[in-house]
Amino acid sequence: MHVLDYAADPPFDVVRAAHAELGVADLDASARFYVDLLGFHLTERTADALYLRAMEDTHHHSLVLRRSDLAAVGHLAYRVRTPADVQLAADHFESLGCETRWVEDAEVGQGPAVRVHDPIGFTIEFFHEMSRVERLLQRFDLQRGAQPARVDHLNIQVPDVQRAFEHWASLGFRCTEYIAQDDAQDTLVAVWLHRKSTVHDVALTPGPGPQLHHIGVWVADTDSVLRTCDALAAADFVPSIERGPGRHGVSNAFYVYLRDPDGHRIELYTYDYYTGDPDLIPIRWSVDDVRRRSFWGHPIPESWWREASTICDLDGNPVETRQPNVIEEPVAVD
Amino acid sequence: MHVLDYAADPPFDVVRAAHAELGVADLDASARFYVDLLGFHLTERTADALYLRAMEDTHHHSLVLRRSDLAAVGHLAYRVRTPADVQLAADHFESLGCETRWVEDAEVGQGPAVRVHDPIGFTIEFFHEMSRVERLLQRFDLQRGAQPARVDHLNIQVPDVQRAFEHWASLGFRCTEYIAQDDAQDTLVAVWLHRKSTVHDVALTPGPGPQLHHIGVWVADTDSVLRTCDALAAADFVPSIERGPGRHGVSNAFYVYLRDPDGHRIELYTYDYYTGDPDLIPIRWSVDDVRRRSFWGHPIPESWWREASTICDLDGNPVETRQPNVIEEPVAVD
Amino acid sequence: MHVLDYAADPPFDVVRAAHAELGVADLDASARFYVDLLGFHLTERTADALYLRAMEDTHHHSLVLRRSDLAAVGHLAYRVRTPADVQLAADHFESLGCETRWVEDAEVGQGPAVRVHDPIGFTIEFFHEMSRVERLLQRFDLQRGAQPARVDHLNIQVPDVQRAFEHWASLGFRCTEYIAQDDAQDTLVAVWLHRKSTVHDVALTPGPGPQLHHIGVWVADTDSVLRTCDALAAADFVPSIERGPGRHGVSNAFYVYLRDPDGHRIELYTYDYYTGDPDLIPIRWSVDDVRRRSFWGHPIPESWWREASTICDLDGNPVETRQPNVIEEPVAVD
Amino acid sequence: MHVLDYAADPPFDVVRAAHAELGVADLDASARFYVDLLGFHLTERTADALYLRAMEDTHHHSLVLRRSDLAAVGHLAYRVRTPADVQLAADHFESLGCETRWVEDAEVGQGPAVRVHDPIGFTIEFFHEMSRVERLLQRFDLQRGAQPARVDHLNIQVPDVQRAFEHWASLGFRCTEYIAQDDAQDTLVAVWLHRKSTVHDVALTPGPGPQLHHIGVWVADTDSVLRTCDALAAADFVPSIERGPGRHGVSNAFYVYLRDPDGHRIELYTYDYYTGDPDLIPIRWSVDDVRRRSFWGHPIPESWWREASTICDLDGNPVETRQPNVIEEPVAVD
Repeated sequence: MHVLDYAADPPFDVVRAAHAELGVADLDASARFYVDLLGFHLTERTADALYLRAMEDTHHHSLVLRRSDLAAVGHLAYRVRTPADVQLAADHFESLGCETRWVEDAEVGQGPAVRVHDPIGFTIEFFHEMSRVERLLQRFDLQRGAQPARVDHLNIQVPDVQRAFEHWASLGFRCTEYIAQDDAQDTLVAVWLHRKSTVHDVALTPGPGPQLHHIGVWVADTDSVLRTCDALAAADFVPSIERGPGRHGVSNAFYVYLRDPDGHRIELYTYDYYTGDPDLIPIRWSVDDVRRRSFWGHPIPESWWREASTICDLDGNPVETRQPNVIEEPVAVD
Repeated sequence: MHVLDYAADPPFDVVRAAHAELGVADLDASARFYVDLLGFHLTERTADALYLRAMEDTHHHSLVLRRSDLAAVGHLAYRVRTPADVQLAADHFESLGCETRWVEDAEVGQGPAVRVHDPIGFTIEFFHEMSRVERLLQRFDLQRGAQPARVDHLNIQVPDVQRAFEHWASLGFRCTEYIAQDDAQDTLVAVWLHRKSTVHDVALTPGPGPQLHHIGVWVADTDSVLRTCDALAAADFVPSIERGPGRHGVSNAFYVYLRDPDGHRIELYTYDYYTGDPDLIPIRWSVDDVRRRSFWGHPIPESWWREASTICDLDGNPVETRQPNVIEEPVAVD
Repeated sequence: MHVLDYAADPPFDVVRAAHAELGVADLDASARFYVDLLGFHLTERTADALYLRAMEDTHHHSLVLRRSDLAAVGHLAYRVRTPADVQLAADHFESLGCETRWVEDAEVGQGPAVRVHDPIGFTIEFFHEMSRVERLLQRFDLQRGAQPARVDHLNIQVPDVQRAFEHWASLGFRCTEYIAQDDAQDTLVAVWLHRKSTVHDVALTPGPGPQLHHIGVWVADTDSVLRTCDALAAADFVPSIERGPGRHGVSNAFYVYLRDPDGHRIELYTYDYYTGDPDLIPIRWSVDDVRRRSFWGHPIPESWWREASTICDLDGNPVETRQPNVIEEPVAVD
Repeated sequence: MHVLDYAADPPFDVVRAAHAELGVADLDASARFYVDLLGFHLTERTADALYLRAMEDTHHHSLVLRRSDLAAVGHLAYRVRTPADVQLAADHFESLGCETRWVEDAEVGQGPAVRVHDPIGFTIEFFHEMSRVERLLQRFDLQRGAQPARVDHLNIQVPDVQRAFEHWASLGFRCTEYIAQDDAQDTLVAVWLHRKSTVHDVALTPGPGPQLHHIGVWVADTDSVLRTCDALAAADFVPSIERGPGRHGVSNAFYVYLRDPDGHRIELYTYDYYTGDPDLIPIRWSVDDVRRRSFWGHPIPESWWREASTICDLDGNPVETRQPNVIEEPVAVD
């Protein structure tokens, strides 16, 4: 299957990446990081979870931090176009032989959803309904830190990028950019796919998987990124600043990668570009081009290449990872 | 027809606002303004026209400046999803009794297109094919001035906003925000409608019409706006800075309005928000809320309320305007 | 006396503009504005006053807001180089026949100071000692709003600019920029004078006086200005945004003028330039050049020209104002 | 000698760091880097040199790039307050037994100057007169790249920081910040000293010396730094981006370090803070605090620690370096 290919008429209609549920050791420590320093807004706190949203959000949450002894990913969620699409998603994954589970009441503020253990090993939720809440986009008086605008995409780590690409493309996700080896097969190394008209709703990165590499959070400007670094450093969170700020070649984003108190990785970034035209041609980056990941040639820390968050299965148990068939090596600047 | 309504299954599929053709007196003066100072890229210059594009553009042009004795709008263009949609657009407007005209060779770098004299009085072009050119998104070494990212929307002035809304909604354009009078009918004063997942591809403003109020050009950040003001002022273009910089309530944009050497109005702006969710609820602004147009309460110059660009019909003759049935009055800060 | 002239060997050595004491009706309302929204840091709150400081401050306060039934200026303060300079200042003003008064305990956190009723009618304090406090420059985790860096200058309104210039120049303040009429006498309209190596520690503006026109507060970047406007508007302080944001011709500052809950005017601004060279030549602006005050040609609201804060004498009674001998008229853009 | 000490009454009066003369292999390559990409303005090009200035400059040049087979530093220049101070500087260095040389005509656009081979091994020029040129501060239409505002400081590398500190302090340079070992002697590792009211005019860094570590160039905002990185990367100058962008602990600067085509190092940075108060207390940083040099904890590339520019003596011959008596080791983030 070629990077230009995707299901133009997919089995159900995904609108966009929506939210993630992360297991965390200490809700107060998470609130300090996500609410006080990053500037997420707390919609609701329950006995065991924080439900957070960003400035653009019109619904209950785009990030769930759940008290857990395991710093792992409960699920990753995509919003579908209609309530009927939830059922179509369930049907589709059952037809693939995947385990599925309906979650009526698992999440505060959310309607019926189905969670599936997808063929790549991830626990993905598809939902349509969520409670409406006040949109805080212009409540500038309440904004702090990075002033997060939205949870934009989920970057997952997979042992077989080509296979994962084929799965996501079969759901109607279209490639916008990719990294390939300069061999006869143009072997796929990493790929970015979108449903909404930005660079990605999901990105597939090579490595031991299934794991979550990072959650991509859109912010309004470079200053939001820089001020967050300043605030984190001042608040004794220097080790949380893992990589950047810098410019990506892929996606054109100005980014910084942060590690939360449980080691989950958050990318704050600004500016990608519009991708909604029907004849979009994916941008190819050679795996040997340092600018693909660090447009300014910055070295990438070992931890960014090697560490990612464990995925839980439908029962909340960690999913074992497999080793990748392709490895992306760092490129040095001459 | 209510602001929530729009044709979910429109007669043809518009992707987005695409470009405008403006009549200008002097191509060199236009090049000075648009290329040297605003930072548009010149794709091609012919004997009688400049074809410009912005950083995100992958195709030949998003702005055409044509030598003319009339400082008027040749046409406004929207891109459709497939070549077949061009024919469907032609059919649809013919069924409405509108004059249509095919333009095979009228524009350099563009495939078959149809221009229609729409029921509101505008000359609108629908096209699908355009020549691909190098995308300059990451050619930061070539960027100047405002570093325009894309021609994002067209803001047109109409004498009957409700009627114009109904026309555009019938083409599948959905309302994201609107201004209304606080009367029993919630009388529509102005409305913003989108196809791509931003706040608007077309905006309908009350006033003598049909006229073009402004072309909205997306830029990456507030600095791009501020630096353009500085450069214009230094280059003796102070009168070109008409309104702003400031924040809009509607659309959340940080904007400045400029007047080009022929008086056509350009809005440079940054940041709106994602609008692609199926259950988007339009934001209502009272016409009595000063923040709707000037979030910071800035007074709006008379010229911004009163002046707009003449529209040409399919033969290039100016279209007569009619007086508006609703007038939007300035609101003062107490 | 010519704008190039100043006392190279002044009677005492002023280091810089230091602070102002403003009468306010409601300390809580002032705290909301200055602390919550503008981001000043509260060093100390007493029964009748708030003592605030900015990010760069190493000493107790640079702004005092004192509960008063009169929204007037208690005093304006300049720091002198040594404790002995306080006595020299007292001696100098006594030799001029001005009333002086020693204030040992009038201000929390401050050492011996002398207040003088200067020949222009202002109550000016000269002090050297002040309690050291933690400098918060890199406590980015505590920063909010405009993130004020320092109280940079005091802009006072005087009925006779030439006379006020001669007084301040006799204290060793040197002119950096000035506005003049295009007449044979090059009549002085307004003037900016410095001790520290920025554009000004004091500015003299024509109008009924003595009055305080505004306090100039330096911020790190344009974003600090823009975000403050957003936050003020969101918090229902739209009427507080009086003029700007915009660029000045004079001083090159990017500015916004705000009105506090009692009507006192604060300028937030960023970037001027280094002025410390011995052979600095003042920049002359014609009073007919719109860019002198609004580099982008923005009209200036009537209130900015007409309103200013009353000055109190040494006994706390309001000082009567006199009408100006020169009037600066607004300039329109053609 | 303690970091608080400096000559309050120095033998001659230095105003500020002024310029540097760098040997370069190819003037066209240097013009590409400094003029096209960094945005310095070319005042004059002679047969063998480029004379450049920055936005704030009122005089002929603040950077001289001279064709040479040796990529070394011709001289580093400080401006003195009066013409008489040039003679006083000559007298002082002669009294120290240093070789001095008058340069009447060595530099275009400059008056009489003396160059000295200082006790630390550097060739330092002291001058007062220089030709006035148009200040381009508000010629925003001409600004490009980083829009350099001024050559702010010179950071030199010395084998004995304590000794170099004592020399510069004897010339009236006062310490603003320093790095020290946590030993009983509080051994000085690096030190920043100022004459003008910013953090530094000279910085002394430990390492083989005498060498020039970098030239510090002030820019107006973070965007000027980020856009320069983007433009350099787009123009195939990725290897020129050596370190950053990031925040310093010392000086509070937001910085990036670049290497020019000959390997000379330029720091672009913005925002430090006012240092002109008489009772300034230097800020002490422990050599074990990672935030002293990388407030965000970024690792520092080996080249930044190990490479610097050779110094020429008065005859243009390279000065031999000596090994440092104190080594500053990188600090890792836990």
